[in-house]
Amino acid sequence: MGTAAVAPGTAVAWGGRAADARGADGDVAALLLRCRELVRPALAGAVGRLHPWTGEMAAFSLGWADVDGTPEPGASEGKGVRQALAVLGAEAVGADGRVAVSGAVAVELVHAFSLLHDDIMDGDAMRRQRETVWKAYGTGPAVLAGDALFALAVQCLAEVPGTHTGPAVRRLGETLTDLVRGQADDLCFEERPWTGPDAVRPDAYRVMAEHKTGSLLGCAAALGALLGGAPEATVAALDRAGRHLGVAFQVVDDLLGVWGDPAVTGKPVHSDLRRGKKTYPVLTALAAGTPASLELAGLLEAAPGTLEDPVAAARAAYLAERAGGRDAALREAAHQLSEARRCLHAVPLAPGPSQDLDALLAFLLHRAV
Amino acid sequence: MGTAAVAPGTAVAWGGRAADARGADGDVAALLLRCRELVRPALAGAVGRLHPWTGEMAAFSLGWADVDGTPEPGASEGKGVRQALAVLGAEAVGADGRVAVSGAVAVELVHAFSLLHDDIMDGDAMRRQRETVWKAYGTGPAVLAGDALFALAVQCLAEVPGTHTGPAVRRLGETLTDLVRGQADDLCFEERPWTGPDAVRPDAYRVMAEHKTGSLLGCAAALGALLGGAPEATVAALDRAGRHLGVAFQVVDDLLGVWGDPAVTGKPVHSDLRRGKKTYPVLTALAAGTPASLELAGLLEAAPGTLEDPVAAARAAYLAERAGGRDAALREAAHQLSEARRCLHAVPLAPGPSQDLDALLAFLLHRAV
Repeated sequence: MGTAAVAPGTAVAWGGRAADARGADGDVAALLLRCRELVRPALAGAVGRLHPWTGEMAAFSLGWADVDGTPEPGASEGKGVRQALAVLGAEAVGADGRVAVSGAVAVELVHAFSLLHDDIMDGDAMRRQRETVWKAYGTGPAVLAGDALFALAVQCLAEVPGTHTGPAVRRLGETLTDLVRGQADDLCFEERPWTGPDAVRPDAYRVMAEHKTGSLLGCAAALGALLGGAPEATVAALDRAGRHLGVAFQVVDDLLGVWGDPAVTGKPVHSDLRRGKKTYPVLTALAAGTPASLELAGLLEAAPGTLEDPVAAARAAYLAERAGGRDAALREAAHQLSEARRCLHAVPLAPGPSQDLDALLAFLLHRAV
Repeated sequence: MGTAAVAPGTAVAWGGRAADARGADGDVAALLLRCRELVRPALAGAVGRLHPWTGEMAAFSLGWADVDGTPEPGASEGKGVRQALAVLGAEAVGADGRVAVSGAVAVELVHAFSLLHDDIMDGDAMRRQRETVWKAYGTGPAVLAGDALFALAVQCLAEVPGTHTGPAVRRLGETLTDLVRGQADDLCFEERPWTGPDAVRPDAYRVMAEHKTGSLLGCAAALGALLGGAPEATVAALDRAGRHLGVAFQVVDDLLGVWGDPAVTGKPVHSDLRRGKKTYPVLTALAAGTPASLELAGLLEAAPGTLEDPVAAARAAYLAERAGGRDAALREAAHQLSEARRCLHAVPLAPGPSQDLDALLAFLLHRAV
């Protein structure tokens, strides 16, 4: 019932932008590749400074090597969104992208750290079709590897010569605390009830997502602009744009976690529903107070394991859509994307790199189309 | 056999200094208290900025609250050696100790972070007569709490206004990577054999101890001097002094772990021997190549659990002493202390605070006398 209405693969196409974005995907892929290639020598150099053992775990976590340390070029590498935002942040303020490299290295290291520690906290055994670091090397070593990446990020940014170092490290410091705060909220949400006065409200979710995902995306773009010599207002605008992007990104991730095509997401169908994750579409569906909301709440609050039944999970997905959760999430993602664009348009940016930034934003939010 | 010769309580008295140090202990206690009181408002303010959940775990780890968050003033608080070194570092270069407060906060937060994560990696369930954070709150939350303290340390130091921020954060960044590198070495040592070409040599141990313990002590004193406006040569000298102190401190810790009085150390007699820990006295005893070294190696390489037998553990302690391990460790601690003093005497420092630093050094190395 209702599964045809939530066919996987169409979940995050909205408005007329899907086709445009698809047309530009090749350009964005080339853009991401260019930024990865620009940053790679410095990133590899930084990782090469680590203790051999933590360096091996870091290379594994970055998708550069398998669990035995054998090089595995690009096999499970991330897209490098954060380093691209840093490079584009510098280019958008008229600087050479190379000035942003130390910032790009720092945000990629922080991202790798956060994935590594979050996987421990969330108990996730798989990431990008491979074992996670704690699963492959043990929890203690994974804690250490995360710490090493975290420390290296601070060191790499702090040792940049020039007058921008102080403000750059200040931004990174704030971002680090925001990031940890977002993860703390996310973990706390798991313990909260689905309904009643202690239920997680959509606005609290947005704050969590801004901290957990947006702060580092914002920091990446802001560091690029800052290292490129931009005035504070421009740096702040890029930071805000990244924060909006982060919320949009997290909401799209949630849409994929409920309605995404397993062939695209690499996760089982309805995976977030079955795990009882507090996702934006489900939270907004519950907050709507419709009959479908009430029935959905009943399913979510039923005995553990209820949603392991595929029929029950499909019913929950149907109810979440029926109560408006899917539409609300799509609207929220579109709204956050538009806010991100508004931030970018409010300050003077170089036209070419600014269009690149725009294309990158759209690309990130059409991942499953 | 031999236990009378290694009576607990006398292990780390060397030369004629024990009595002098004992006489000065009251002064040092007052000094530590003064520094804790100076730093406390800023440290409490920083911890108060954390997410409530990570803040609760941080307060527990700092000994300020019990596991339910109920305030427990001073019950299990540390001595605050690192904050004292920061304050004295500033005073020794003629500045007001208050200029060092942000540095003192940062090093105390880093210390709390490192204890918290090290306890996870080492599987230690108790610290300062209480459960460790991972034991009390779970591993995932403890990882998060450590990350929060780490991030907060960077943020607190980075947001200090003034021209010293860049160099200060640079020092902290280097220290963080040294700290993690030392912990990585320490964990790797556990997997190494007691004898043969892959055995841990005393010089490798010293490098590990300098990173694991010395780097943060050195950073504390150096940050104080740096924030106090000292020239680079003075800052570097204080850093080196702290690093020597750290090696001495770790060696004394090892002496206590083998021969320390359980009533003083809070650990079972011969605890490090029974756990098969690679301690400096045991490593130097093995490296001596005497008949006692060979017999000691045999005991250490025997079936797991062999040293759980108190007679075997006492025999191992006797052999380690017989092979010169205890004397070598006492000499090494004295040498490192003297090197620390040499660093302090090589640069111009204010006489009063310089004497305070000296007294603090001696106090730290006479913990069990």
